[in-house]
Amino acid sequence: MNASLLRPAIYIASLCGLYLATAMFLPAMVDLYYGHPDWQVFALSGFMVGGLSLMTALATRGQPPAFNKRLGFLLVNLLWAVFSLVGAVPLFLAEYELSFAQALFESVSGVTTTGSTVLVGLDTLPRGILLWRSLLCWLGGIGIVALGIFILPFLKVGGMSVFKLESSDTADKPFARLASFTRAFLVIYALLTLVCMIAYDIAGMSHFDALNHAMTTVATAGFSTRDASFGYFDNEAILIIGTIFLTIGSLPFSVLILLAVRRRLNTLREPQILVFIGYLFIFSVILAVYHHLRNGVGLGTALIHAFFNLASVLSTAGFASEDYTLWGPFALILAFFATAIGGCSGSTAGGIKTYRFVIIFNIIRSGLKRLIYPNAIYPVRYGNITVDADAQRGIFLFVSLFLTLWVIGSMIMGAMGYDFMTATSAVLTCLSNVGPGVGALVGPAGNFSTIGDPALYLLSLLMLLGRLEILTVLVLLTPIYWRQ
Amino acid sequence: MNASLLRPAIYIASLCGLYLATAMFLPAMVDLYYGHPDWQVFALSGFMVGGLSLMTALATRGQPPAFNKRLGFLLVNLLWAVFSLVGAVPLFLAEYELSFAQALFESVSGVTTTGSTVLVGLDTLPRGILLWRSLLCWLGGIGIVALGIFILPFLKVGGMSVFKLESSDTADKPFARLASFTRAFLVIYALLTLVCMIAYDIAGMSHFDALNHAMTTVATAGFSTRDASFGYFDNEAILIIGTIFLTIGSLPFSVLILLAVRRRLNTLREPQILVFIGYLFIFSVILAVYHHLRNGVGLGTALIHAFFNLASVLSTAGFASEDYTLWGPFALILAFFATAIGGCSGSTAGGIKTYRFVIIFNIIRSGLKRLIYPNAIYPVRYGNITVDADAQRGIFLFVSLFLTLWVIGSMIMGAMGYDFMTATSAVLTCLSNVGPGVGALVGPAGNFSTIGDPALYLLSLLMLLGRLEILTVLVLLTPIYWRQ
Repeated sequence: MNASLLRPAIYIASLCGLYLATAMFLPAMVDLYYGHPDWQVFALSGFMVGGLSLMTALATRGQPPAFNKRLGFLLVNLLWAVFSLVGAVPLFLAEYELSFAQALFESVSGVTTTGSTVLVGLDTLPRGILLWRSLLCWLGGIGIVALGIFILPFLKVGGMSVFKLESSDTADKPFARLASFTRAFLVIYALLTLVCMIAYDIAGMSHFDALNHAMTTVATAGFSTRDASFGYFDNEAILIIGTIFLTIGSLPFSVLILLAVRRRLNTLREPQILVFIGYLFIFSVILAVYHHLRNGVGLGTALIHAFFNLASVLSTAGFASEDYTLWGPFALILAFFATAIGGCSGSTAGGIKTYRFVIIFNIIRSGLKRLIYPNAIYPVRYGNITVDADAQRGIFLFVSLFLTLWVIGSMIMGAMGYDFMTATSAVLTCLSNVGPGVGALVGPAGNFSTIGDPALYLLSLLMLLGRLEILTVLVLLTPIYWRQ
Repeated sequence: MNASLLRPAIYIASLCGLYLATAMFLPAMVDLYYGHPDWQVFALSGFMVGGLSLMTALATRGQPPAFNKRLGFLLVNLLWAVFSLVGAVPLFLAEYELSFAQALFESVSGVTTTGSTVLVGLDTLPRGILLWRSLLCWLGGIGIVALGIFILPFLKVGGMSVFKLESSDTADKPFARLASFTRAFLVIYALLTLVCMIAYDIAGMSHFDALNHAMTTVATAGFSTRDASFGYFDNEAILIIGTIFLTIGSLPFSVLILLAVRRRLNTLREPQILVFIGYLFIFSVILAVYHHLRNGVGLGTALIHAFFNLASVLSTAGFASEDYTLWGPFALILAFFATAIGGCSGSTAGGIKTYRFVIIFNIIRSGLKRLIYPNAIYPVRYGNITVDADAQRGIFLFVSLFLTLWVIGSMIMGAMGYDFMTATSAVLTCLSNVGPGVGALVGPAGNFSTIGDPALYLLSLLMLLGRLEILTVLVLLTPIYWRQ
């Protein structure tokens, strides 16, 4: 164990704990205003966690060390562990009776922007706890974008080095650019949430519903304030607004920032954006036509619901306007596999992610050519970038480990007694940070309240592994990481 | 279209057609002996196909061309197309009424040693057709081993270049070594079948059952002469014999030949063999303990059945001693995923194959190290061999395409109306050339007789794609293949 790494990592993590503790006073105030006793839980948790974080921060402060990869890996893991535990504290202590495993699952589901829930009766829950869930998603979303844009490309995890900003690997004032970039991101993220909230509000949601759904839409998280999710509102305008903001939330924020700066639409011509919009469009149209032909639903309505629910799965948010898995076996199988696909890098979306599919497709293309001309060189490209062997290997590593975890996780769930569909889809939806799986138990019409504690621990771990792109966590388990 | 390639390819394919036509006289004689009118079908098919093949051979013979990759790809595709079509002729014409799609599916299932069947009432079927099915498997097995040992490594498909024999890429008398190698393989293959047949016979099978099951065991195919597969015999000795020969059939024949020549057991210390035996053993023990604890079956019986059924799935044979998917959700999920795993290269087993998992594991290991020391070199090894970037890419290509076909195939099956479990497992079992899937329809207790013709065409195509390691087929669809 390397103390020179541990001290600064704990210091930064405790600062984040302090921020999260401060955020607890928001739900505390809301519950106080509406006269619900949970306000004490949030206030107490805030003071407890805040005090603990402050003391830890004071105990571990010191010279900032040179940032290196070892510290990066440790920090990322520690940050998400702290987020998850701190987020669980008020959930565990609140009036609503949750086991520790359930509170932890709900918190991890929030900070990883997964959006699977163990709570039932959301419609009548006190507002503090609902707001806290949405806040976890929204703040988690900020962490995830920062992770995807700054940290993972620097750590070269899972092929993310393709997206290395020039700033992240040169010593030429990286922090100046980083700071301005972060500021631009926070402004855009907050603005998007605000616009989304106003749109939901105008379309017919209550102010409180609009606020919460806006936060969990832009963070592509999927927590709702209603058991029936978007089905509760029965409002096509809301579904269209949701589709638009879920799609925007799946795009790389670095591109959104450039778009805001340059104000030219061709900024959006990045391969992963085109492909993401492409498959969202194609799958939605096919699904709508299938729904229309098979179930006799009007084509307009079918299109609106197909677009919303697929945008929700592909953005890895996981809202539902109705149980689309009942539209027929094709719909269920499409939803099942779409769970693994995910959105763009540098967004809050999870899953395998679009850019990896783009690169895999180009690897296949160049590989088929090489079968005929083995000595010719066919570079694998991603837009104008040549994808080097390291990045290709990174993608291979990520996809292999993703599938391995899916298989092992499903078998463990099976050994715990869960049926084939529940086991395989619960594990997949958690790894991809989507939210609902398929089937009666964990499908869009169900939730995770019927899942036992041991399985919830497993699924919480899988959500974190998926969120941190697996390798970031596994590397801490290798002896070489800890060797001097 | 390149005529200089097409002529020799058609010539060799028609010679194979001629061999297969000759083989039809075996079931003809059997049916004649037992007085079943199907003998005329086999005799007529034999003369028809034989005559046609002979004429084609005469029309296309000429100077043997230089063997190159283009010819290799064309030849492999053409050979399996001819095998499949020729095999289907007597099945389509026989007394048992099969649609053309069904006859083709059954034939493809045979020559790819998949072993999925559309026939019901096997126990009372005339012996000719039963023998023909077993013959297709047995002869198909020879083709597959030849493919895996000589052709795919030469074509560098799917990472198979790791197993390139020295003889296949040097001009130094390759055909002399090839011929002696082929002879040795045929002797061992025939001997194994003979010993297996005698063992089955002594353990209690009828002569005819023993012959057929020996052929489909050593070819790891899975066709049975009984609807209940090995369950019919209710005989633990037979299951143990089956387990042993299925395991041997999953080992690389090149290693078995070396073993026969050197007579030293340490010849078997190849990574894929150790790993294959390893996971067969571990999975079987876990499954047996699960079966024992959950269903109260005696541990000895549970072990025998677990070993037999898992050896059957992992060798991609697909026999069943009973419906192991009813042992509990863990058994079903294990069987589902085990379907994709497969046996060793250079055997008759299908699936993703053990050596790919060994190499993927080593790629992950070296990749994790490189995350910490990006500039250090950690070569990926397979035993004593360094796996070059080309072979790594080949494995990546194969696995990506395998999964892509699984997803697309499942969605098409879903659109045809098949439920989630049937669709996903039927496609997976066909791609892996295993035989049964999971679920009521296509599981170990079911068969493919309830599957409609369009789906059977799709599944036949998938069996061929899986058997030819996908890339071999896809390469023919690229423009670059046909360019001069």
